[in-house]
Amino acid sequence: MEGDVPSKKAAKKAAKAAEKQQKKAEHKGPVQAQNDEPDISEGKYGTYKLIQSDGSYMEREYVDVKDMGEEFAGQNVWVRARLQTSRAKGKQCFAVLRQNSATIQLLISVNDVREVSKQMVKFTGNISKESIVDVQATVVKTASPVESCTIKDYELFASEIWIVSAAKTQLPLQVEDAARPETDDPEALKIRVNQDTRLDNRILDLRTPANQAIFRLEAGVCRLFRDILTKKGFVEIHTPKIISAASEGGANVFTVSYFKSNAYLAQSPQLYKQMAIAADFDKVFTIGAVFRAEDSNTHRHLTEFVGLDIEMSFKHHYHEVMETIGQTFTDIFRGLQEEFASEILTVGQQFKVEPFKFLDPPLRLEFPRAIQMLKEAGVTVGEEDDLSTPDEKLLGRLVKAKYDTDFYILDKYPLAVRPFYTMPDPNNEKASNSYDMFMRGEEILSGAQRIHDPEVLTQRALHHGIDISKIAAYIESFSFGCPPHAGGGIGLERVVMLYLGLDNIRKTSMFPRDPKRVTP
Amino acid sequence: MEGDVPSKKAAKKAAKAAEKQQKKAEHKGPVQAQNDEPDISEGKYGTYKLIQSDGSYMEREYVDVKDMGEEFAGQNVWVRARLQTSRAKGKQCFAVLRQNSATIQLLISVNDVREVSKQMVKFTGNISKESIVDVQATVVKTASPVESCTIKDYELFASEIWIVSAAKTQLPLQVEDAARPETDDPEALKIRVNQDTRLDNRILDLRTPANQAIFRLEAGVCRLFRDILTKKGFVEIHTPKIISAASEGGANVFTVSYFKSNAYLAQSPQLYKQMAIAADFDKVFTIGAVFRAEDSNTHRHLTEFVGLDIEMSFKHHYHEVMETIGQTFTDIFRGLQEEFASEILTVGQQFKVEPFKFLDPPLRLEFPRAIQMLKEAGVTVGEEDDLSTPDEKLLGRLVKAKYDTDFYILDKYPLAVRPFYTMPDPNNEKASNSYDMFMRGEEILSGAQRIHDPEVLTQRALHHGIDISKIAAYIESFSFGCPPHAGGGIGLERVVMLYLGLDNIRKTSMFPRDPKRVTP
Repeated sequence: MEGDVPSKKAAKKAAKAAEKQQKKAEHKGPVQAQNDEPDISEGKYGTYKLIQSDGSYMEREYVDVKDMGEEFAGQNVWVRARLQTSRAKGKQCFAVLRQNSATIQLLISVNDVREVSKQMVKFTGNISKESIVDVQATVVKTASPVESCTIKDYELFASEIWIVSAAKTQLPLQVEDAARPETDDPEALKIRVNQDTRLDNRILDLRTPANQAIFRLEAGVCRLFRDILTKKGFVEIHTPKIISAASEGGANVFTVSYFKSNAYLAQSPQLYKQMAIAADFDKVFTIGAVFRAEDSNTHRHLTEFVGLDIEMSFKHHYHEVMETIGQTFTDIFRGLQEEFASEILTVGQQFKVEPFKFLDPPLRLEFPRAIQMLKEAGVTVGEEDDLSTPDEKLLGRLVKAKYDTDFYILDKYPLAVRPFYTMPDPNNEKASNSYDMFMRGEEILSGAQRIHDPEVLTQRALHHGIDISKIAAYIESFSFGCPPHAGGGIGLERVVMLYLGLDNIRKTSMFPRDPKRVTP
Repeated sequence: MEGDVPSKKAAKKAAKAAEKQQKKAEHKGPVQAQNDEPDISEGKYGTYKLIQSDGSYMEREYVDVKDMGEEFAGQNVWVRARLQTSRAKGKQCFAVLRQNSATIQLLISVNDVREVSKQMVKFTGNISKESIVDVQATVVKTASPVESCTIKDYELFASEIWIVSAAKTQLPLQVEDAARPETDDPEALKIRVNQDTRLDNRILDLRTPANQAIFRLEAGVCRLFRDILTKKGFVEIHTPKIISAASEGGANVFTVSYFKSNAYLAQSPQLYKQMAIAADFDKVFTIGAVFRAEDSNTHRHLTEFVGLDIEMSFKHHYHEVMETIGQTFTDIFRGLQEEFASEILTVGQQFKVEPFKFLDPPLRLEFPRAIQMLKEAGVTVGEEDDLSTPDEKLLGRLVKAKYDTDFYILDKYPLAVRPFYTMPDPNNEKASNSYDMFMRGEEILSGAQRIHDPEVLTQRALHHGIDISKIAAYIESFSFGCPPHAGGGIGLERVVMLYLGLDNIRKTSMFPRDPKRVTP
């Protein structure tokens, strides 16, 4: 094997030689050629040739912006970061370097000791914003805090600066503008970047500190969800997105051309989760794309979103499952508080974020109780009606006022408003063994005990006027012995939006899809 | 809050009362009514009414089959499991209970002390296979090991048996047959269940011990992949499956009706991973469905599979990324060995599994070396040709013979056989900075350094005869400053198939999709 991989030592030697050669080649580059005066910074700035893995600079190590502090004070370090801004004025250029959510001030000033020429200062002032640069600099404690940067107590004094990848000079949006705090100030509103401009230029928009934080937190939600359930003995499964028939009548389903026939995109993994239960996997979860061909252009609908789905067999009562799901939520909320405090803070610097409150164990209300609370607040709701979105929001406020929680479970929905496969309540013919879960008054999970008996399922389907022949395979699934089970589906983007208190689901989908948008 | 949730104590009391009532109701059930003789087992067997969460039996606790051992010897326990088989003969009925991959023998014999009547024995003998039952039984040490069960040293003497969910009597396949070891014995082949019968009745097929193990191990691959990368600072992202245009010319892409227009299903998340890199996420991974509208009916092609995708910015050389991916594989292999030894053993009881061998760090070969090895083995391959599937397999055998590894990295593919966005090798105009990774001679990852410069990318696209206007948005992505980066995509089902040495990818996809199958 050694014969195939060059040793590290040899690689370093080759790299050093290549670095020398490359530098020679580059300081004859276009930038220096424009200046007639002798340049003491020759070979210390310019544009790298395309990084094509030729072995250059391989021994060079870099320090992360977020780590700049006492540990590196007085040291000469290399940094690779974006040039967020630069202003050259005479013999000085002030710049800001950004790496993910961290920023630091960079000073390039004409200096004989550091061998910084006015040509180098001018060069730096002309580098286009958002370009990626390699900077060699000394880490220096600042006299007074740099309020505009996340690293306030240290700045960098540059001795080399090289463009790694240049951004074009005309950007469709300025990251600084996209990162401005939300405010009602009319002057500030003028330079606010609107949602469509952001999404059309998502690569730039995603570079804002808030977006860097939002999507790291979103990854955290998925990780916590999986880790919590794995510890409880759940098995992760993968369910097909391409399906042969729409499970509930075919409304709101996307059609796919499938070789010489048609197929559909799954609106949820429910049938497959249930099959996994019938196949003895006991407790399963799956994370994946789900599709809704709904022409809804609202702040909380997407045509494609990430579903976090759970299905679990139980022994006696569906509350075994409902409580497992509820506990999973409180564990996720606690995990976010503990592990993502800095991300939550960063998001809060741009958006108005109210801390998310929850109880442990979570609050469970029964549907009739909710109706009663709404009635007491002056809203007329039928006892067998579903809640409208405004009623849900009002209920969220009432629950928050009374119980001081942004999360709760609403149990025992009317049978009439739930899908045919929902298990009826054995003690109340108008109720069902089903539940929704809410965050800040918006539904983020819908779930229920499913009917696991083919005969009862057939009766209920007939009652709903469903053509039995079309769901024969679904019903058949329960004829080989199936344990009682319940579950639910969660929309990832909604959870993140509502946890952070954001106003639009497009803020929590990296590349959102809605009826009017399938790009980028 | 307390007002809304009944206390545990109250619930237990109510449950106990309900249990009494339910038992009363049930021992008047149809089964006992057929018998005229007095029945000492009355109220100790029968069929439960549908478990509808009415609060019955809520205090009853169950023991898992896999845990039956010394700890419970002599104790009276409850078990909920499938009745895999039952044979009543006179005053005795021998049955096998199965739970996931674990099985135990159950004896029901006429007995005055245990109050087991011949009616009860007969009832048990008539329970249809695969029904789920609740059994109360004493755990007893066996005189000699029960070879046909996974629990060999203990068996259960039943005192109660209740049907929780009955399977129909005519099953489309027998789980015992589906679980039979693969063999060349012609007699055994007769009762082998063929692939299509298995897949058509996947719920039953998935109950075999081997399948229970395969999909638990598959979940383990995903978990290890994510945990290893998360520890290295990778961020999980989610990329859209519905896209506006096919990235590489439109071949092999499924078309979706998208409101009044058309869209497509993504063949890979590559563009979006790269956008995340250009948006400063540095190191990303994503797990999700990818779609290939290829009419390939082979042992290793699916039209929908689970992609494990990685993209990572690097400082100097794409080997930083390639080595990270290679190390991720060896860490996964080691994790599977350590955590899934019993699953691997279970799969090995049905299928011929050769242990998977790997080196750490993994073997890296360069393409010309592979060509040379093939030539020495008598195969003619052009130096700028891609490897054919048979050549890849032969190479896998040659590498195994020489280096004793089932996993290796083949680096520096000819530029001519790679996509236009692959970075050319700066030192050899015929080579590229790209690699494939192999398990048991089959490709499981294809990756490369991507071109991160819009001009070079345009040149390469033109060289490939690609209509630049159709990929303008892709090229534009790199004009706002983008770090050098590389990555790769892995097919989950292939990894599991090849790790275990299985012969068909349909064995490692829970609900496989191919040109001829979109059900169940």
